[in-house]
Amino acid sequence: MYERVRADDRSPRYALAVSAALPTPSDAQDARSKLAPLFERAKRAQRDIPDGPRNEALRAIARQLRSRQAEIVAANEQDVAAEAEKGTSEALLDRLRLDAARIESIAAACEQVATLPDPLHQTRRDWRLEAGPEVREVTAPFGVIAMIYESRPNVTVDAGVLALKAGSAALLRGSASALSSNRVLVSAMRDGLNDVGLAPDAVQLIDSPDRHYVGGLLSARGDVDLVIPRGGASLISHVVETATVPVIETGIGVCHLYVHEEADLSMAEAIAVNAKVQRPGVCNAIETLLVDASVAEQALPRIAAALGAHDVELRGCERARARVPTMLPASEGDWSAEFLDLILAVRVVENIDAALSHIDRYGSRHSEAIVTANRSIADRFQREVDAAAVFVNASTRFTDGFEFGFGAEIGISTQKLHARGPMGLAALVTTKYLLDGSGEVRS
Amino acid sequence: MYERVRADDRSPRYALAVSAALPTPSDAQDARSKLAPLFERAKRAQRDIPDGPRNEALRAIARQLRSRQAEIVAANEQDVAAEAEKGTSEALLDRLRLDAARIESIAAACEQVATLPDPLHQTRRDWRLEAGPEVREVTAPFGVIAMIYESRPNVTVDAGVLALKAGSAALLRGSASALSSNRVLVSAMRDGLNDVGLAPDAVQLIDSPDRHYVGGLLSARGDVDLVIPRGGASLISHVVETATVPVIETGIGVCHLYVHEEADLSMAEAIAVNAKVQRPGVCNAIETLLVDASVAEQALPRIAAALGAHDVELRGCERARARVPTMLPASEGDWSAEFLDLILAVRVVENIDAALSHIDRYGSRHSEAIVTANRSIADRFQREVDAAAVFVNASTRFTDGFEFGFGAEIGISTQKLHARGPMGLAALVTTKYLLDGSGEVRS
Repeated sequence: MYERVRADDRSPRYALAVSAALPTPSDAQDARSKLAPLFERAKRAQRDIPDGPRNEALRAIARQLRSRQAEIVAANEQDVAAEAEKGTSEALLDRLRLDAARIESIAAACEQVATLPDPLHQTRRDWRLEAGPEVREVTAPFGVIAMIYESRPNVTVDAGVLALKAGSAALLRGSASALSSNRVLVSAMRDGLNDVGLAPDAVQLIDSPDRHYVGGLLSARGDVDLVIPRGGASLISHVVETATVPVIETGIGVCHLYVHEEADLSMAEAIAVNAKVQRPGVCNAIETLLVDASVAEQALPRIAAALGAHDVELRGCERARARVPTMLPASEGDWSAEFLDLILAVRVVENIDAALSHIDRYGSRHSEAIVTANRSIADRFQREVDAAAVFVNASTRFTDGFEFGFGAEIGISTQKLHARGPMGLAALVTTKYLLDGSGEVRS
Repeated sequence: MYERVRADDRSPRYALAVSAALPTPSDAQDARSKLAPLFERAKRAQRDIPDGPRNEALRAIARQLRSRQAEIVAANEQDVAAEAEKGTSEALLDRLRLDAARIESIAAACEQVATLPDPLHQTRRDWRLEAGPEVREVTAPFGVIAMIYESRPNVTVDAGVLALKAGSAALLRGSASALSSNRVLVSAMRDGLNDVGLAPDAVQLIDSPDRHYVGGLLSARGDVDLVIPRGGASLISHVVETATVPVIETGIGVCHLYVHEEADLSMAEAIAVNAKVQRPGVCNAIETLLVDASVAEQALPRIAAALGAHDVELRGCERARARVPTMLPASEGDWSAEFLDLILAVRVVENIDAALSHIDRYGSRHSEAIVTANRSIADRFQREVDAAAVFVNASTRFTDGFEFGFGAEIGISTQKLHARGPMGLAALVTTKYLLDGSGEVRS
């Protein structure tokens, strides 16, 4: 059993001492064995979570974050200063930065998750076997969920809090650049758990910048029930290629908008601008615009002008450049690029078949959109495009857990197993079958 | 586009020529590139399946299997003879064998799958985003499903037919020992597809005994959407450890029956006998009996006698052997063994905590059962045991797609992602979100 720390024993740094910095491992296998005590503690701590005061814990975590705001900001300043010294870009520094307002919004998010419906102990179906026993399919915790992610330290709290609400323990592996910030954030979460009588080890930081620990997590079959990577393309593909534990792949978005022959062009223009410009650095922004050859003459100049007004760099195929000569020429690599920037590839396609085939070849199965007034074309597009979310006459930017009304989002799944598209709390639980009989045997 | 073979062009072996024997690859990477044309054909063929005459295809496959019964039996006799020459046991030869009755039951199963509800195009949820667009979460095909399995050739047809019904193409990799049988079975399925105007390439055999082809399938990200292994422990763990494509792990069953202090002992005896004896070679049979110390004196001799009457070999801990001295001593390895035979490990446990901790340590998270008249103990057992199916007062043998009323079973998932427990057609589809707007953009 976990030994509760008495209030008078606690210094503000008590939890850091429990989640101590890890030694440098020689390889992934060694990292896994150095992680063994963390796995054991996570497993033991997890047992009390599903039937423990989970929502109270989330509110206590919010209180701890607020009361330790100065300490969080100070630790974060160290991280930011160290990165700035390396010459990291201001955009990346901004992703790393925590100030009072951001800490308040992280704390408020914890309280908001506490208000969401419980994903656990829900009966999804129940029936009676012909042979007699009653069956209930109920939601159940995964157990130990590991999260591997990049710079933004708010993910540390998001992931920990969503795992707890879903009844699981969390192992958090953020980026080396955010280690000081993450130490204090995790310490605050552990104190919040302790405040309500739950074992702090339900949230643990992988407290080392060493990359072998990623390998240690990814190979920990039997100790880690699920890994969710969140970050750029190379992180995701490393995790997916390496992991022997179950993974939910998230987030690479090479998304398209196809302007069909029967599109309302002012609608197409508005959607193109919104889907590219409103927040270009996210996965549900579009990276390529496909324009039907039959409307290229009318559509391209006006959409290009609208995007140009927002400083979007356009890279077009030859036919597109024939309509808008100011476009740069697109290279083959541009069709599969996730620019995450004010850059858009533009291609004129002969018809819907060519659009579908371009999307099939270059898309990342995330979010795809068509603008058309023709319902049967829209139906065909929705039926044939293989992606998590397929839009008719709306912006791809709606692929988002909050927009979907899930109240939270742990990431956007681009795989087809278990969860596809925006993942809220329902994606963080599994199910089990409970059967109740009165001595039935199989004949 | 796939070129339809005219009836007058077809010899009975037409489909074999299409699904030609594969050359020997030098390694898994080479195997993957040699499989590239099959992936391409599977993908192209799959497109017409979801909206094609899927049920008619299954009935046509049943007709083809019946009409080619003699050819199937002849091919199977070659396989059986080759295996017999190697000194393979009669039990394994029997798993490999196909006779008229078995072929008829395979054909009947195809027709039965045709009668099941369509798993595709089902709306699981629909709602309207606050921002306007309507959302439908609909079931959708995976795309290309690869099945890697061992000797029983009936799996060839089961897997192909269930994949088709679920709108996917199937790549089938059976055991080398069943290759001749599988060739004819796949040829019959392809002819059935052709009969109804669907592309035969929706079902393809990996026509080579070379094991590198398993590696080629497991590394084919982007070409294979899902792999399902079915077979023994070493096959499953090889697949799970190697695959970079998504996998659903199936079937290892180290299942327990725990006889609680407040058990009805005649019920406990009947369930123990049924769960061990009724079909010992399957994953949902029990491998270990746990008996509460407080009832060991009354329970163990009667349960041991009942099992003895069915020639079950008992391997007990010291306390169990003190009650039933004829038991053999159990070794540490017996607690985690999947005997798949008339052998049962027996352990006396101090109380429910010890039972839960034994199951947590040695169980394979498949099916676990308790016999007790105490509802709160039953609830605790169901809540705390981490397994696909948790039984109170019923035999573990009910963990089965047909018993669950799914009408079919592709395997029993022992993982927590996507599907857990018996998998019917619902486990063979994914979902996508379809959004319909009228020009909405995100603000």
